[in-house]
Amino acid sequence: VGSPDGGEPRVLARFGDRVIDLHVLEELGLFDGVEGLDEASGGESRFGGRSLNPFLSLGPRTWQALDEKLTDILTAPPPSALGLLEQTRLDLPIEVADFCDFYASEYHASNMGRILRPGSEPLPPSWRRIPLGYHGRAGTVVVSGSPVRRPTGVIATPDGATSGPSARLDLEVELGYVVGVGSNRGEPVAVEDALDHLFGVVVLNDWSARDIQAFEYQPLGPFLGKSFATSISPWVVPIRRLSEHRVDGPVQGDEVGPNLRTPQPRGFDIDLELSINSTVVSRPEARYLHWSPEQLVAHLTSNGASLRTGDLLGTGTISGPDNSSWGSLMELGWGGQKPFVLDDGSTRSWLCDGDTVTISAWLGDGTGSSAHLAGSSADRAHQGAHLGEVTGTVLAARSG
Amino acid sequence: VGSPDGGEPRVLARFGDRVIDLHVLEELGLFDGVEGLDEASGGESRFGGRSLNPFLSLGPRTWQALDEKLTDILTAPPPSALGLLEQTRLDLPIEVADFCDFYASEYHASNMGRILRPGSEPLPPSWRRIPLGYHGRAGTVVVSGSPVRRPTGVIATPDGATSGPSARLDLEVELGYVVGVGSNRGEPVAVEDALDHLFGVVVLNDWSARDIQAFEYQPLGPFLGKSFATSISPWVVPIRRLSEHRVDGPVQGDEVGPNLRTPQPRGFDIDLELSINSTVVSRPEARYLHWSPEQLVAHLTSNGASLRTGDLLGTGTISGPDNSSWGSLMELGWGGQKPFVLDDGSTRSWLCDGDTVTISAWLGDGTGSSAHLAGSSADRAHQGAHLGEVTGTVLAARSG
Repeated sequence: VGSPDGGEPRVLARFGDRVIDLHVLEELGLFDGVEGLDEASGGESRFGGRSLNPFLSLGPRTWQALDEKLTDILTAPPPSALGLLEQTRLDLPIEVADFCDFYASEYHASNMGRILRPGSEPLPPSWRRIPLGYHGRAGTVVVSGSPVRRPTGVIATPDGATSGPSARLDLEVELGYVVGVGSNRGEPVAVEDALDHLFGVVVLNDWSARDIQAFEYQPLGPFLGKSFATSISPWVVPIRRLSEHRVDGPVQGDEVGPNLRTPQPRGFDIDLELSINSTVVSRPEARYLHWSPEQLVAHLTSNGASLRTGDLLGTGTISGPDNSSWGSLMELGWGGQKPFVLDDGSTRSWLCDGDTVTISAWLGDGTGSSAHLAGSSADRAHQGAHLGEVTGTVLAARSG
Repeated sequence: VGSPDGGEPRVLARFGDRVIDLHVLEELGLFDGVEGLDEASGGESRFGGRSLNPFLSLGPRTWQALDEKLTDILTAPPPSALGLLEQTRLDLPIEVADFCDFYASEYHASNMGRILRPGSEPLPPSWRRIPLGYHGRAGTVVVSGSPVRRPTGVIATPDGATSGPSARLDLEVELGYVVGVGSNRGEPVAVEDALDHLFGVVVLNDWSARDIQAFEYQPLGPFLGKSFATSISPWVVPIRRLSEHRVDGPVQGDEVGPNLRTPQPRGFDIDLELSINSTVVSRPEARYLHWSPEQLVAHLTSNGASLRTGDLLGTGTISGPDNSSWGSLMELGWGGQKPFVLDDGSTRSWLCDGDTVTISAWLGDGTGSSAHLAGSSADRAHQGAHLGEVTGTVLAARSG
């Protein structure tokens, strides 16, 4: 969603460095005959509004039909619908209904346990049986590019707590899954039906103030340590477009309940890249996620909770086996104990004011080989298509 | 919000056993000249929709102006706008933006600590310094009268966990505060400005599956144990209408940060009554809440999180000093160890299928004396105005 011409935002599709205005195509009558688009709209536009939601609610047959139609149109697009990406102001693509965030990477969850609860079992006993998650704040999900002000709060210190700006501002490399079609309260969505509800994927940065979180999180979980901002990429990649890029995820055992059992391939061959300012600091891979999006949907609705169009499900931080693929500063700096160096020679344990954090995603090359750092992003030839990017710059805390 | 005539839902006001249709009053031109209502609406109705949100966004001066106008109109209301409450189908009054729930009653938080973590300090160290809270699921907030199906999930058992229907289905007696006017991201709302944002109060039942919650809640807090349903009363009481009924809440010490300090009276003189089927089982009082709604708003936004029209802030379970005033079955049955008896002779530790749970609220008599049980609701003369009621019946879990 955005404005290629400085006017009102509308729904856009992107191809390369160009955008195409779906509202103009609709007005030109080019979507006539597309299944689901010419029915029961009451004359209302699906693409003239400020979010993808009206379109998302129409379901997989319409998503697919529009995808095919757009593929046709893009061979000779009407000039009046075209814009340049670089001239387009991009907005939040969806009206977020509920945002919940999971904890689906075993490497990440284990690292967090080792750092925060040393001496105890790193993984909670429930971790392999169900996807752990919590609800976040939907109202502070923002589009890539939005600045993020360092939050102030009551922060944990070695000898208690004090009030002030967070001194442990972190990021989390995640994917987010966007729900298109809602479900009825009281009716769980079966794991094999989840793709009837899931529309697409975004890249997500779950900004986290670890010291605010440390003070507040017992016993109710993360709250103000997370709720100040969550950034997502402006383009939603249809999950069906990724069906050829599923790969085997981690092995799951018999402890997984029958309602969550689903065959491989459960993972995605998606390579992520985290950079701070101009330094690539990590390359997590989505294949490390223990739980598939279908399993997250099945679990989330297993108690009868309904889905709504615009629900956003974060995967939780995606981390791999070592510090070339960890997805948070908590891990990369090991809770502040092991600062790392950026290309300009400065060190980081946590984010500094002015830091720009960028997370990019590409389709992988299918080899499944673990990524390794090779200097900067420019040094690495990405094999697959670029899936999206989420970026944001840290502003200083409010004074006073 | 509801339909007095079986037609489309619209915004209603209630007086006694009658409802008045604000959309009809608006169409009759009776709101002409009311500050904020005749401006900048673009010709769109504020009251013809399915929620109070368009009206709530207009702010305190308009809320007050409409209140005064309605007081005038009710002396001789136009018959075309009148309906009978008993013939009116009531819907969810607000489109819930974000729902978060706090833990603001010391008696409740202490009881939970004693039951769930015996041998440790019952209150978390953060409890007196900041209001603890978490985000719940906005999409499953339902209006009073909606049935609630017993959820199924992975439930904690004495020797591990199993899959099945919750065997520890509970309720929580709460108030909910409804946000009218949103705020900007990055700009905390000062405690003294909170009433510029808060519109009103509902009665809230935060249904809880304690065994699902017990298995999942470490370390991310409540999730599926709560997200299947939260019920609220259909009528939102303007918080300004309660300004004469503020009373001193619990004493707060110097541990409360400067941004949350606010003078007494911080409490409300509101008596609640919990009944299961026809038995009154408890009478919690809102004066036991440690944190005021203004403090909850100030804390929620202290990290820069923004408010939106329709945000709902639950107080958390309201409990008093003994079992005549505890607000959950977890406390009333002491975690299943001390079943209690209903008027029909049956016992309860947890809710049974078919149980109807009703929570009602009245303005108190100002004495502040602790309520005591006196048989059934009919035996007790409530001194003050009835503020609302939330009710719901438990359905059996889905089979299979």
